[in-house]
Amino acid sequence: MRDARKKFMRAAIRLARKGMNKNSGGPFGCVIVKDGKVIARAHNAVTDLNDPTAHAEVVAIRKACKKLKTFQLTGCEIYASCEPCPMCFGAIYWARPDKVFFAATREDAAQAGFDDDFIYHEIDLTHAARKIPFEAMQSKEAVTVFDEWKIKPDKSVY
Amino acid sequence: MRDARKKFMRAAIRLARKGMNKNSGGPFGCVIVKDGKVIARAHNAVTDLNDPTAHAEVVAIRKACKKLKTFQLTGCEIYASCEPCPMCFGAIYWARPDKVFFAATREDAAQAGFDDDFIYHEIDLTHAARKIPFEAMQSKEAVTVFDEWKIKPDKSVY
Repeated sequence: MRDARKKFMRAAIRLARKGMNKNSGGPFGCVIVKDGKVIARAHNAVTDLNDPTAHAEVVAIRKACKKLKTFQLTGCEIYASCEPCPMCFGAIYWARPDKVFFAATREDAAQAGFDDDFIYHEIDLTHAARKIPFEAMQSKEAVTVFDEWKIKPDKSVY
Repeated sequence: MRDARKKFMRAAIRLARKGMNKNSGGPFGCVIVKDGKVIARAHNAVTDLNDPTAHAEVVAIRKACKKLKTFQLTGCEIYASCEPCPMCFGAIYWARPDKVFFAATREDAAQAGFDDDFIYHEIDLTHAARKIPFEAMQSKEAVTVFDEWKIKPDKSVY
């Protein structure tokens, strides 16, 4: 078990280096495992794809879900070469795998020039105090749409 | 200015209802505005696409970046029918727009059965205490990849 986990993590780290060396994006890799087998692998591709959401974990989650034809990763483990950033953290929670393993930390990422740790701090600030300010615009209509959702008979809950 | 903002928010809310009514996913919409014009619009498409990352904000950010051919949304404003979840919060910070406006709150979303507020709470827990446990696997190799990135001469910083 321990050895298998090390093998999966080494694969994630190999992907991190591979993506970096071919200038796809930052040095981050991820593999997703189900029943002891890798079902999705990805590296960061932000600059190559001009997609700020193309982090290794997000790309791997999208691939794994496509493969499994579901929006849930029940029974899966995620191996990330670095601690997931808040975006990837959120993506993981929506995908609901069983467990997440990571190697480098958010502090390591910060030392390499990435905003992960900064974003973790910003998330706890009040809306107005954030570097990117968030402004609430109250709207009865927005809440009404939620009320319609609540009573919708044929909704797919996720 | 105020009227324009209301118009953009109404468009985001319209998209929320549209996506819900055609069973694309949850009742969430988003528009991205640059220089007073909408450059991207999206609604949640999680269940339709089997993609847990297909939240309105993430889809709209990807569209806007594709359109602008860049991974940065400098000079843009994001209008979301509901307060962005942690995943979308992170995506917004990586895309770096000027400002975010939202209508319904994370508490409204929670009342409609969505995990946004729950995920905001989980993010502050220790790795082991989370509902989806995160386990650190120390690896010298993972940090070495960051060291290689730091001295990489032709890297694109994002």
